[in-house]
Amino acid sequence: MPKGTPSHWVTGVSEISESDIFIRGYAMNELVGTVPFSAITYLLIRGELPTPGQARMMDVILSSILDYGLQKSGTVAARAVVSVNPVMTAGLGAAVLAAGEYALSPEDTGRFIAETFAKWQASGKSKEEAATALVSELRAAKKRVPGFGHQVFRYVDPRSQRLKALAKEQGVWGEAIEWYEAVHKAFQDATNKPELVLNDVGMLAAIMVQMGFTPQEMCGLALLSTMPGLIAHVSEELQSGVRNRLIPDSHVEYETPRRDLAGELTKLGWR
Amino acid sequence: MPKGTPSHWVTGVSEISESDIFIRGYAMNELVGTVPFSAITYLLIRGELPTPGQARMMDVILSSILDYGLQKSGTVAARAVVSVNPVMTAGLGAAVLAAGEYALSPEDTGRFIAETFAKWQASGKSKEEAATALVSELRAAKKRVPGFGHQVFRYVDPRSQRLKALAKEQGVWGEAIEWYEAVHKAFQDATNKPELVLNDVGMLAAIMVQMGFTPQEMCGLALLSTMPGLIAHVSEELQSGVRNRLIPDSHVEYETPRRDLAGELTKLGWR
Amino acid sequence: MPKGTPSHWVTGVSEISESDIFIRGYAMNELVGTVPFSAITYLLIRGELPTPGQARMMDVILSSILDYGLQKSGTVAARAVVSVNPVMTAGLGAAVLAAGEYALSPEDTGRFIAETFAKWQASGKSKEEAATALVSELRAAKKRVPGFGHQVFRYVDPRSQRLKALAKEQGVWGEAIEWYEAVHKAFQDATNKPELVLNDVGMLAAIMVQMGFTPQEMCGLALLSTMPGLIAHVSEELQSGVRNRLIPDSHVEYETPRRDLAGELTKLGWR
Amino acid sequence: MPKGTPSHWVTGVSEISESDIFIRGYAMNELVGTVPFSAITYLLIRGELPTPGQARMMDVILSSILDYGLQKSGTVAARAVVSVNPVMTAGLGAAVLAAGEYALSPEDTGRFIAETFAKWQASGKSKEEAATALVSELRAAKKRVPGFGHQVFRYVDPRSQRLKALAKEQGVWGEAIEWYEAVHKAFQDATNKPELVLNDVGMLAAIMVQMGFTPQEMCGLALLSTMPGLIAHVSEELQSGVRNRLIPDSHVEYETPRRDLAGELTKLGWR
Repeated sequence: MPKGTPSHWVTGVSEISESDIFIRGYAMNELVGTVPFSAITYLLIRGELPTPGQARMMDVILSSILDYGLQKSGTVAARAVVSVNPVMTAGLGAAVLAAGEYALSPEDTGRFIAETFAKWQASGKSKEEAATALVSELRAAKKRVPGFGHQVFRYVDPRSQRLKALAKEQGVWGEAIEWYEAVHKAFQDATNKPELVLNDVGMLAAIMVQMGFTPQEMCGLALLSTMPGLIAHVSEELQSGVRNRLIPDSHVEYETPRRDLAGELTKLGWR
Repeated sequence: MPKGTPSHWVTGVSEISESDIFIRGYAMNELVGTVPFSAITYLLIRGELPTPGQARMMDVILSSILDYGLQKSGTVAARAVVSVNPVMTAGLGAAVLAAGEYALSPEDTGRFIAETFAKWQASGKSKEEAATALVSELRAAKKRVPGFGHQVFRYVDPRSQRLKALAKEQGVWGEAIEWYEAVHKAFQDATNKPELVLNDVGMLAAIMVQMGFTPQEMCGLALLSTMPGLIAHVSEELQSGVRNRLIPDSHVEYETPRRDLAGELTKLGWR
Repeated sequence: MPKGTPSHWVTGVSEISESDIFIRGYAMNELVGTVPFSAITYLLIRGELPTPGQARMMDVILSSILDYGLQKSGTVAARAVVSVNPVMTAGLGAAVLAAGEYALSPEDTGRFIAETFAKWQASGKSKEEAATALVSELRAAKKRVPGFGHQVFRYVDPRSQRLKALAKEQGVWGEAIEWYEAVHKAFQDATNKPELVLNDVGMLAAIMVQMGFTPQEMCGLALLSTMPGLIAHVSEELQSGVRNRLIPDSHVEYETPRRDLAGELTKLGWR
Repeated sequence: MPKGTPSHWVTGVSEISESDIFIRGYAMNELVGTVPFSAITYLLIRGELPTPGQARMMDVILSSILDYGLQKSGTVAARAVVSVNPVMTAGLGAAVLAAGEYALSPEDTGRFIAETFAKWQASGKSKEEAATALVSELRAAKKRVPGFGHQVFRYVDPRSQRLKALAKEQGVWGEAIEWYEAVHKAFQDATNKPELVLNDVGMLAAIMVQMGFTPQEMCGLALLSTMPGLIAHVSEELQSGVRNRLIPDSHVEYETPRRDLAGELTKLGWR
């Protein structure tokens, strides 16, 4: 099959031989039990084994979203699905689709950081100069910067601070994160809002950019983080015995009045 | 590729040439506009063009489920999904998974009819004798017969009657349906419940067995019937501007009390 | 529940009473059998009963995509899924997700037509003047116009011509389609390419804009059109007995060489 | 809302307050970084914090399946989907559906072990006696026992041995696993096949039964284990630039000959 055609496949992820499965080139039998799941997750996605520090950061990334219970649309969708089709895969399949523009999307923040970081690096400007210019540009275009602001926290988001300390401690701190912090500083200055925090979603996305993940992979990692909670909710629903989840009439406003079919059909020329 | 292996594919559904697409052997350009969508649906699934009567019956099958609004779990799942991921495919993907054991499953009824019909035909017994024997057997095993009974209708389900009249009129009436009616009669007699109706789901499944559809195809047709309603609901949700559908706290009973992490970790030997 | 909040629902699609289901206000028992599935599809999505002509156009829209067999990624995904999880819903769920940027997306063309049409109508300019200006603008921005061009057809796409004739015949012709034709004419003139056709996808999208469908609804209708073929393929796969569809090694290029775990772990500081 | 109805929800998984999210009663801010992802996974699904040993076993369970590359139908489905709809959620959604009867189903083995273990415990018989009776019964009914046998390994499956050693070391060994080993011994004896191994899937399922997971949860955990590989494959596919994955004609056998529409329509009474 010629390269790049729809039936020619190229992969570096894993390969199966008679005797073993090779994960990014490493024998699975040697890997499992030797390094933790978080390290293997990093290996599978990034293609290289992490340092112990990167693996520990990875474990925190996997633990970063977890579960918002019935306050999350994906949980509602999953439980609704299994209330009529009592099968784990169906519930997880529906839940996985409930990530996107308005939820579970470090992807957008990650894309913003990765793209502006690459542009700065190509520009030859100083970080502060470039960040100030970018903020002016964004404000003129009335665009928001993802990852800034929080409903409760002012001046400091303790969760971002913890992530920052951890990233430094584990040796995954770097220029991409510093670039994003510079954008944050420039934004605070330009808007004169020193109380506007760089929130946890922003810091996490910056750390993932620094670790080399693509925006789409960040979406995948966010979903992976929610899987244990989803399994728990689907299992709970399956054991609840409730069938046919629905919206009670008391919560629904029906907009369409009853109508007369015969009259309408005549009017439209059916009769 | 050798036959029957995971990378050897056999299909009779359609084939693409430079100039046209061949649907079950017929040029698509000739088909579309010549026969209605319901006829092409029958052709694609059954492999043969229907008679005009079969096509009319098919149209009624496609119109048989349609939409139960927010009383259906699939609608709830679809709207929950697009409230965070505002994309038509994601909403339809979730909804399609909400068909199974407790909803949208003419499949089970179809399987019952198809299997018992085949067994009767192989048995050499008279229809009445076989139906009576089957009912005894089912009652001894405390199994229910799918498609019998209704919350409101007694003695006669007007919807089944309409379907029956239509099936006769359109020439799709036959032995499989009569077999199922015989089982119904035997069940009424054995339980002494003449008021127990053969409901519309039962009659529809019997007609689909008669037309040659497999149980899995019936599930597919049921989902196809709900597609217009699902498109309407997803579109309505996308236009509503509501984000992050959730279950309000007033409807949720939280079972787990707050717990002390440090104490528990010590007890379990983490510290 | 207050309006517009995540647990307050508003719908005009359908409502269930004790005695019947009301589809956009019409009793389902009266609808089914009285008007065809294509008319009910229009009613559910657009909210109003169609004229007989609109219903006939709708039937052609439902028949417009159908099936590309194993040349379509959605078919491959569906059959791969049911080769390990032999369930109709799972196969359809996967297939429905295989519509988007590169396939089954009248959505983009529809969005282009709807948006530029609205802008023209608000502009007060003549159709030709506005179309010429739009084309200049698009060419300056190096943007392509969706729905123009075809691999085989030159000067005329016979399928578009048939759709155009039908739309006129059934009374669904109108200004939105004429606007799109004017853009096509302006594009041919500006590029001096009179052989560049307005293709069938373009004409179909224009007709759907004219009929009042939103771009997202067009994506839904495209998927609906493929459902009979998908049911046929999933059913065929389920009956084939083939398990575990995979890509044969002869079609895969494995990029990662075998690697030494122990050495790498030492180097990275794990040991 | 009355209990047990479709709009009354009960959950013990997690609860959101103004200040924090409570995971099974524990404050998320205290949990994350204190115990690893594998421990939180156990907590979310089982409802209780694990011991350090249970958490280590959990990490091995999460690492047990990982990735079979393009030899797995789920990978093929995911990559096919994103080749036309280049979105991470869509790819993962399709892949999650590709677990069931013929792949990724520790569920069946888990169900067998859990059900027969419970029956034995209620029986009052000795383990050996009960195991021998069960094997006779299964053989008479010509049922297979899931989790026995391997294509390559004879007498001993080194992977099961490692899992067994680890389970003992981490303190998760127990009666359910011993019951399953007794069934294995009885099966070897009854069939006189001492070379028939208890394979890794069997041992893993037994360990998960011992740890208290339900069969459906095992399916969820198997899928969770494959998520890193799926993210890697979807990302690789998105970066490959290949569009519209399809099955090349050289691999497809088309069964339906070209047919004459006009003649057939006349014959069927359409004309």
